[in-house]
Amino acid sequence: MEKNVSLDDIVNIAKRRGLIFPSSEIYGGLAGFYDYGPIGFEIKRRIIDDWWWNFVISRDDVYGISPAIILSPAVWKASGHVDEFIDILVECTKCKSRFKAETLLEDLGIKISDFSMESIKNSLRDNNARCPKCGGELSEPRRFNLMVEAHVGAVKDESSVIYLRPEIAQGMFINFKLISAITGAKLPFGIASYGKVFRNEIAPRGFIFRLREFEIAEIEYFIDPDEQNSCEDFHEVDNIEIKIWTKEEQKRNLKPKERKLGDAYNEGVFSSMWHAYWVGESVKWLESIGLSPENLRLREHLETELAHYAKQTFDIEYYFPYFGWKEIVGIANRTDYDLRRHSKTSGEKLYLVKDGKQFFPYCIEPSFGIDRIFLAVITEAYTVREDGKVILRLHPKVAPYDAVIVPLLKRPEFIAKAEEINRMLKRERLATYVDVSGRVGKAYVKADEFGVPYAITIDHETFENDTVTIRFRDTREQIRVPITELPIRIRELSKTTV
Amino acid sequence: MEKNVSLDDIVNIAKRRGLIFPSSEIYGGLAGFYDYGPIGFEIKRRIIDDWWWNFVISRDDVYGISPAIILSPAVWKASGHVDEFIDILVECTKCKSRFKAETLLEDLGIKISDFSMESIKNSLRDNNARCPKCGGELSEPRRFNLMVEAHVGAVKDESSVIYLRPEIAQGMFINFKLISAITGAKLPFGIASYGKVFRNEIAPRGFIFRLREFEIAEIEYFIDPDEQNSCEDFHEVDNIEIKIWTKEEQKRNLKPKERKLGDAYNEGVFSSMWHAYWVGESVKWLESIGLSPENLRLREHLETELAHYAKQTFDIEYYFPYFGWKEIVGIANRTDYDLRRHSKTSGEKLYLVKDGKQFFPYCIEPSFGIDRIFLAVITEAYTVREDGKVILRLHPKVAPYDAVIVPLLKRPEFIAKAEEINRMLKRERLATYVDVSGRVGKAYVKADEFGVPYAITIDHETFENDTVTIRFRDTREQIRVPITELPIRIRELSKTTV
Repeated sequence: MEKNVSLDDIVNIAKRRGLIFPSSEIYGGLAGFYDYGPIGFEIKRRIIDDWWWNFVISRDDVYGISPAIILSPAVWKASGHVDEFIDILVECTKCKSRFKAETLLEDLGIKISDFSMESIKNSLRDNNARCPKCGGELSEPRRFNLMVEAHVGAVKDESSVIYLRPEIAQGMFINFKLISAITGAKLPFGIASYGKVFRNEIAPRGFIFRLREFEIAEIEYFIDPDEQNSCEDFHEVDNIEIKIWTKEEQKRNLKPKERKLGDAYNEGVFSSMWHAYWVGESVKWLESIGLSPENLRLREHLETELAHYAKQTFDIEYYFPYFGWKEIVGIANRTDYDLRRHSKTSGEKLYLVKDGKQFFPYCIEPSFGIDRIFLAVITEAYTVREDGKVILRLHPKVAPYDAVIVPLLKRPEFIAKAEEINRMLKRERLATYVDVSGRVGKAYVKADEFGVPYAITIDHETFENDTVTIRFRDTREQIRVPITELPIRIRELSKTTV
Repeated sequence: MEKNVSLDDIVNIAKRRGLIFPSSEIYGGLAGFYDYGPIGFEIKRRIIDDWWWNFVISRDDVYGISPAIILSPAVWKASGHVDEFIDILVECTKCKSRFKAETLLEDLGIKISDFSMESIKNSLRDNNARCPKCGGELSEPRRFNLMVEAHVGAVKDESSVIYLRPEIAQGMFINFKLISAITGAKLPFGIASYGKVFRNEIAPRGFIFRLREFEIAEIEYFIDPDEQNSCEDFHEVDNIEIKIWTKEEQKRNLKPKERKLGDAYNEGVFSSMWHAYWVGESVKWLESIGLSPENLRLREHLETELAHYAKQTFDIEYYFPYFGWKEIVGIANRTDYDLRRHSKTSGEKLYLVKDGKQFFPYCIEPSFGIDRIFLAVITEAYTVREDGKVILRLHPKVAPYDAVIVPLLKRPEFIAKAEEINRMLKRERLATYVDVSGRVGKAYVKADEFGVPYAITIDHETFENDTVTIRFRDTREQIRVPITELPIRIRELSKTTV
């Protein structure tokens, strides 16, 4: 099977099968915004559902909440986002095109070791950089805040400015005290959420890789600063092997090294044992939804890349054949930065007390870019068979349907039987559909492209002995089973116990 | 049991148990924005999941999509929202308070038969209305657009103005052609979505009843204009009885009349048979998540209330003991208004062709206010037992957990057994938790307030014969069952087959 997938392949299937496509296309589109179609949204929903199950419901120490997208502007002042959540912008003085400095340098083939304002200025000057579009002179780089501003209230002035959240985290920090009081949770424990966030990206690009509106799923996991290196569950992940690229190795131009998480922790790679644990849990989940271990690696942020709140951050990167290694998850050690800031600014007591002493918990934050993970899942699943047909080899738990039901012939009794089985499987809460559009082969081809793992076929024998065949998407093998056993067989095959 | 629930009761339990609370409270809050806590969000998630299952996955004729929150501004010009999506605003010239005209009149006890600009002006003048806060003189009423404006792009000027969607509908209309091409769907068929919407309400009020950021779930169901009265499935709902209040009855001060939907359709109450069908499907679902038929009624919009796009609209109203009858679902006949407007403005062919003739499908739109439904569900479930204890009698399918596991004694072997059963039930994808916080009675009280339908208790007998008791939240009765049968028994009891 061919695995040399290009971005064009992905964009094509995304459009052709309604996975995802540019928003507002009938009006010429809007840069950085995409709409999910029926198949794409179902895959995305299942990714989010499984994330929620894995990191919230199935655990006893993480509480799910849903804070508003729009918070008081005071939150973003206190968190440092109003001052520090910026990109560096360069404009062409001639054609007025605007560039994100990092991307401009990359496009101009200028290598740079850190992305500070100083070193960006220097490299642009030293390389005598010009506008890649028109050759015009470039402006001095300047700081550009990435938060989307909006107005709420009856008048539109400074007093009515609010921000669309660029991360969910703050909505969890400001509720830290309330949630711990309500739940009675003791450290260590986490608060989790998912939902839309907005960033006024200077130049959205890379299909859905850099969007202005996107979905993230985040956990803020709070630990006792005195117990950062005592994580009872670390043994559950310490054997996971992954390529790790430390900041030292990056600076010294060394390659990433395959390590066990436990060994890396012992080497002192991680800011804390809890940091290593959450890297492990994140990698485990990504693999459970179908991403191959060899396509995942861990890259530590350089000092100059670190967000204003982070002590140490690791990106889990995925190898996109058409982009190279790109971040899909970030796992930051935010220390007590946020709780301390909000406590000071709001006057609320966001600290805890131990042995009569006040302290702020530390926070490890795994943050998952759901649209990027969606893209990785589709890319990993995209396969061209020997006969030239495309299959999405999706893991059953993130496939858009559990099964398709196909009548061998377009005769009334075949169609009626297919619809009867469809209703029966839906009563058992399986997501199924009947394809009566044409020939059986065509229905299979379509279901393969949708990533539907099983096709149930009604044939002549069905009417003799109440059996049907189940065809496997990936192998095209078929087995014959009694109709009554279908729900349990499909569930077993999907390796879901529900 | 007491059912005389007040808004204070609801606000109290919402805060105490972390259902939902004002957002950004540590910074003094932000009017019109709320955060969902662990219990509240789980209930809301289950409401949305069940909605999606019922209206999308379990049907064969509705396709779920997820368009962006931010669409091209051209969409909102074409749809009429930039010009017509307004409320009438009245300001106090003295204290500068701002009022929504409708609410101001209600607060001043001024009855008005229609809410046109003209009649609002007249009643304010005729009644010599003054500011209810300071007695100051009121401004002339003026039109106020409810869309939240934001800026996307590197400069902040007119060209960068975008709107946060006030409804999801437009994100579905603009994709009508694409979705029908991708799916090959033939009329009648629907497109559905759910998600956040934003409205710059002049005066948010009524707890979470009128929010600036809220969640809706919408279906745009497209029908052939020549077949508006041939709905094959109408027989599935025509026997549903509900109080209906037509606009004629409202104008003539008559009371709502209990009718069967089939009879009402025959009387000519509905703009089409499909309109009546979607009213029926909506009522059926609301009842299935626990709302009582006697607390639901159908009210037709007066001509002056109709949105700019609607030919006829019915609100499904819920009887909140503390608010009276209030809208929780709106079901509009949008005709071909939207597709026609977008077709004309964008130049895209959003029509279909039949017998060589072009035509625009008509659209019936059931639109569900999820936060209002959440409030109705909580209100309906809120019960005070004879002993003064509060129970949320939630339907198991919208309860935040499937069961709580309670060890009778706080001894290691009891706790270990509880945790073992917890892990076992979670492997079966049941949402459970262990309560070891204190005495058994306290654990029951807490679970009752959370609305958890079943409590599984580990007692002495558990260690003799591997059985536990299941306690029922609503009756406090207990049955004894073998541990191995727990998953199947809990599922059976919940009447969910998954």
